[in-house]
Amino acid sequence: MDLASIGEIPGGGCARLALTDEDRFGRDLVVQWMNDLNLDVTIDVVGNVVGIWNVGSGAPVMTGSHIDTVRTGGKFDGNLGVLAGLEVIQTCQENQIAPSRPLAVVFFTNEEGARFAPDMFGSLVFVGGWSVEEALDTIGIDGARVGDELERIGYNGATPCPAKAPHAFVELHIEQGPVLEQKGFTIGAVTGVQGISWQEVVVSGQSNHAGTTPMNLRHDPAYVASAIAVFLRKLAERYGGNQVCTVGKIDLHPNLINVVPSTATLTLDVRNTDEKLLQQAEEEIRLYLNHLAQEEGVTITTRQLARFEPVVFDEDIVALVEELAIEHGHSVMRLPSGAGHDAQMLARVCPSAMIFVPSINGISHNPAENTSDEDLEAGANLLLHTMLQLSNMETQ
Amino acid sequence: MDLASIGEIPGGGCARLALTDEDRFGRDLVVQWMNDLNLDVTIDVVGNVVGIWNVGSGAPVMTGSHIDTVRTGGKFDGNLGVLAGLEVIQTCQENQIAPSRPLAVVFFTNEEGARFAPDMFGSLVFVGGWSVEEALDTIGIDGARVGDELERIGYNGATPCPAKAPHAFVELHIEQGPVLEQKGFTIGAVTGVQGISWQEVVVSGQSNHAGTTPMNLRHDPAYVASAIAVFLRKLAERYGGNQVCTVGKIDLHPNLINVVPSTATLTLDVRNTDEKLLQQAEEEIRLYLNHLAQEEGVTITTRQLARFEPVVFDEDIVALVEELAIEHGHSVMRLPSGAGHDAQMLARVCPSAMIFVPSINGISHNPAENTSDEDLEAGANLLLHTMLQLSNMETQ
Repeated sequence: MDLASIGEIPGGGCARLALTDEDRFGRDLVVQWMNDLNLDVTIDVVGNVVGIWNVGSGAPVMTGSHIDTVRTGGKFDGNLGVLAGLEVIQTCQENQIAPSRPLAVVFFTNEEGARFAPDMFGSLVFVGGWSVEEALDTIGIDGARVGDELERIGYNGATPCPAKAPHAFVELHIEQGPVLEQKGFTIGAVTGVQGISWQEVVVSGQSNHAGTTPMNLRHDPAYVASAIAVFLRKLAERYGGNQVCTVGKIDLHPNLINVVPSTATLTLDVRNTDEKLLQQAEEEIRLYLNHLAQEEGVTITTRQLARFEPVVFDEDIVALVEELAIEHGHSVMRLPSGAGHDAQMLARVCPSAMIFVPSINGISHNPAENTSDEDLEAGANLLLHTMLQLSNMETQ
Repeated sequence: MDLASIGEIPGGGCARLALTDEDRFGRDLVVQWMNDLNLDVTIDVVGNVVGIWNVGSGAPVMTGSHIDTVRTGGKFDGNLGVLAGLEVIQTCQENQIAPSRPLAVVFFTNEEGARFAPDMFGSLVFVGGWSVEEALDTIGIDGARVGDELERIGYNGATPCPAKAPHAFVELHIEQGPVLEQKGFTIGAVTGVQGISWQEVVVSGQSNHAGTTPMNLRHDPAYVASAIAVFLRKLAERYGGNQVCTVGKIDLHPNLINVVPSTATLTLDVRNTDEKLLQQAEEEIRLYLNHLAQEEGVTITTRQLARFEPVVFDEDIVALVEELAIEHGHSVMRLPSGAGHDAQMLARVCPSAMIFVPSINGISHNPAENTSDEDLEAGANLLLHTMLQLSNMETQ
């Protein structure tokens, strides 16, 4: 709640866009808490901050997330994972528990991507997925440059990227969706992150008078856009499993009651945890667009806006999360993440996984974002036990 | 072309919104042409202008249309019917043809409804369908009052409304649609005007993350709006005949690629020449909306924006137009009008009908609106012969 008071907005939310003054004050507070725990704090060249409790030996077991938010963000997205990590270390220290390996807590720069693209910016550079130079030269939506902003707020660190890989990485996060609450589970053992296919579709037809143009002479982009949206819904229902499809944006021109539009621009958001099924969905959609274009006598062009393959988390850690949850009396289910998280970047360099706790009404990126105290505690406890076990486990 | 030079806009079109200075200068020119033909010119209390050639005896055979345009109008919509009417009289005068009844040419105020609502404003008052007081107090999209504007441009006449009913009314107009061109006919014998049902539909669902919300937990207004648009297309195809359905306007909120929208607002434009079928379509749509609302778990509200019953033109005049077209060597087909016209108001008080000539590419309300010289000539000649025959016919 102290961290949430920095950049607070009406309705109980936070606005701490990456590398703004609000983000700086948030960072300062978390770094102070790291220092209070006597952690070794390092800041890397893109502003990722790592606090290490140097106990045991070998590469650390790392946890963490991010503390930047979207413009109308909640209190828990990202922040929970960072603060729960600090609490894990504090609990160990207060209870004279000595892990076999160092424990580390990280907060990554600009996970949200709300000021600078892409999202998961800091963790991408941390694992060597993008060059430091290009990252620092990134210009934000307000014209600011990452390198300049890092320097301005005093978080242009010296630790190089890519970083040394941790022993393992586990991230606690709110679900940001309705599944755990709906099904009545306290803990989600996250199996991976959905692959994402984003397309923009432009349908060009012929603008006509809605009264004087017989149906068989129409080339109607609004009908075509609607048929695509209905097709995507039916496709998702046919595929089942983790397939989701969304048409969230439709723009008709001229968008008048009595005019068949000349163009429709719409977006397709298609996700699956299985890359083969995702490709199959993309191909089915391609064929359907061709069919529709011919049938209605319109032109359809598509543009790929984003494409990420699914990420599969480490089966041993997922199973460990499940076992420990049951051992500690929590109901647990496996589920994939529909949103992107820093853990998917860490999965490139070390065994990684995530723990989800329920979001009330599935709401996130919204001041009303909330999770019950009991669920927050259950998640933090499970993170503690998972990190301790990981410090004793061999990983591959 | 002289009339089209007043208020001309790039691309060959006209902007003479009702009761503006451009409309005034257009009116002045047409009144001058009426005077050149020695017509008795009267202006009524809502600015409708009638020029009567006082030959023969009894109530006049009237023709005419309107000379106001939409903001990006063409040269022919309305104007053709008025100027062809003047040419009919000029041709009779030059060739010493003496009709049995007076011939009259009228141009009605604000047919388009682009500045003042409703459309067919002047002809509605002309036939006694609306009170003069309310008409004069109408406020336009720019805040101007009809009565004030009539006075300002000098067209606040003294002739009362409702007017004395003519013997018969026949209006020559461009089709404003693609049917005649597509089917290869020069003349359309217009059987009536489609009934119109306009609804606004608001779908309220639940805004959710496109990645984290499983399909079975969605309440998606974009899907519902799309399903409605597809249903309307299929309904129109099932009904066939003169049934047309259009969804020309869809607004999603927040209209973002990765967010299931919270609301969708769309419009339904449903038209048929048969009132029973129009009512049946409305009822089918109502039931489908109820079904969808229940199935998807959304709220759907509807608001009637407009509702007009179909108008059936006088069978004797429609048959006369057909016969005369064939007699003069023109191909002719019967068809309904998908758009509203002044003739539908006149049909309330006297036998009325319309003659259509083809619109190139079906384009209207657009600077590119055009009709070939041959078709314009065919239409004007047919108007001449129809008016002469009507002046000799008993009508009911």
